[in-house]
Amino acid sequence: MAILSCLGKMRIDILTLFPMMFYNVMNSSMMNIAQQKNIVDIRVTNIRNFTYDKHHKVDDRPCGGGPGMLMKPEPIFRAVESIWHPPDVKPLLILLSPQGEVFNQRLAKKLSEEKHLIMICGHYEGVDERVRLGLTPKEISLGDYVLTGGELPAMIITDAVTRLLPGALGCKDSTQLESFQNNMLEYPQYTKPEVWRGIKVPDILKSGHHEKICKWQLQQAKLRTRKRRPDLMEQNKKVEHDEPS
Amino acid sequence: MAILSCLGKMRIDILTLFPMMFYNVMNSSMMNIAQQKNIVDIRVTNIRNFTYDKHHKVDDRPCGGGPGMLMKPEPIFRAVESIWHPPDVKPLLILLSPQGEVFNQRLAKKLSEEKHLIMICGHYEGVDERVRLGLTPKEISLGDYVLTGGELPAMIITDAVTRLLPGALGCKDSTQLESFQNNMLEYPQYTKPEVWRGIKVPDILKSGHHEKICKWQLQQAKLRTRKRRPDLMEQNKKVEHDEPS
Repeated sequence: MAILSCLGKMRIDILTLFPMMFYNVMNSSMMNIAQQKNIVDIRVTNIRNFTYDKHHKVDDRPCGGGPGMLMKPEPIFRAVESIWHPPDVKPLLILLSPQGEVFNQRLAKKLSEEKHLIMICGHYEGVDERVRLGLTPKEISLGDYVLTGGELPAMIITDAVTRLLPGALGCKDSTQLESFQNNMLEYPQYTKPEVWRGIKVPDILKSGHHEKICKWQLQQAKLRTRKRRPDLMEQNKKVEHDEPS
Repeated sequence: MAILSCLGKMRIDILTLFPMMFYNVMNSSMMNIAQQKNIVDIRVTNIRNFTYDKHHKVDDRPCGGGPGMLMKPEPIFRAVESIWHPPDVKPLLILLSPQGEVFNQRLAKKLSEEKHLIMICGHYEGVDERVRLGLTPKEISLGDYVLTGGELPAMIITDAVTRLLPGALGCKDSTQLESFQNNMLEYPQYTKPEVWRGIKVPDILKSGHHEKICKWQLQQAKLRTRKRRPDLMEQNKKVEHDEPS
């Protein structure tokens, strides 16, 4: 690990009851390439491997009643401690939970500057509160919706973070011009064919006049953001106001 | 399809360049059970199957320049039209895109009332604008962060929607008491053992006094929401104000 960190390679550990869900996802597209290029080391650990009873019990009924099952604390603690051995530097521990800080591009950027993330995927009704109290993970939520478990959110965060690591994307520009970097949605884009189902590529894009094209794109991005996500425009105004240039 | 719809079974089609990513995800946990129970019919289609040129080209450079590659319109139109044949009733077409309406639990509920969803997963720099103009999909974004493609968002939406379908969850109560249903985060929950790493289950939860437990849980949920997500509390106030009981 120490050597890997020196080389700038990020390590991401995912602790889950459903390791199978990750295999094809982590081995497709950009995440696959990033692993092949040795930019990131993604490891998936089955929390169930850290149960020591005959039935490999990972969940139990909530104290005081209520529906569903809760994940027991012991296997989660043991799984974390199989990866992080104090007094080693503590990796950034993340608990995927609807109760966490809502994930956004700024948080993705911050996470991409860490050396080692451990993500704990809650499942069923959630985790025993002592996972929060005893391991003090950073809690991250993907948004205001309810999912069956933290597995898909862990994949999303791994994707969003990995693509920000230097060298992960083929074209260096690709992370710079895209959505949310400037609190702005993207302008409309066109490729071949020139006419499809009666709809033409706008003439301006074929003009070859770089400056005019840029102006049009910026204008379109502003129009679209104002129409669809006025809240993002407001954030821009606030930033401009708070940070005089 | 007509017969299936009568029986209340929902159909979800996912159009993607990376069908492999879906297999283990859709065959795990709740989504697997819901398919086994015939509550939902999830089908994954490879957009690349609808390219008719020798190299099965699905993307091309953006007109007017810019980094990355855009998905061409023809294979996407053909893939949609392989599933939806006008004048049949149009399924709800969804384009996963950072430029869409931000997904939340209310939208999940609304989608769960549809009979048939077709989700188009953008990838690379996005899709040719004519997919928007010609197919007029509903655009949905998962949140304000950038991902490599719409595949993970399509999985998230499928999960969030499927678990709301009648019969998908073992315990009917499970969808009612959970996060965001009342714009409130969940209260802390505990299971066995009674003491773990020196932290005890709170006495109140072992009291057996149902009314007191409920009161404590509501109080804890309010405390946690106020501390972590004051914005949700504000939304509650607004709803109370707008909808006099």
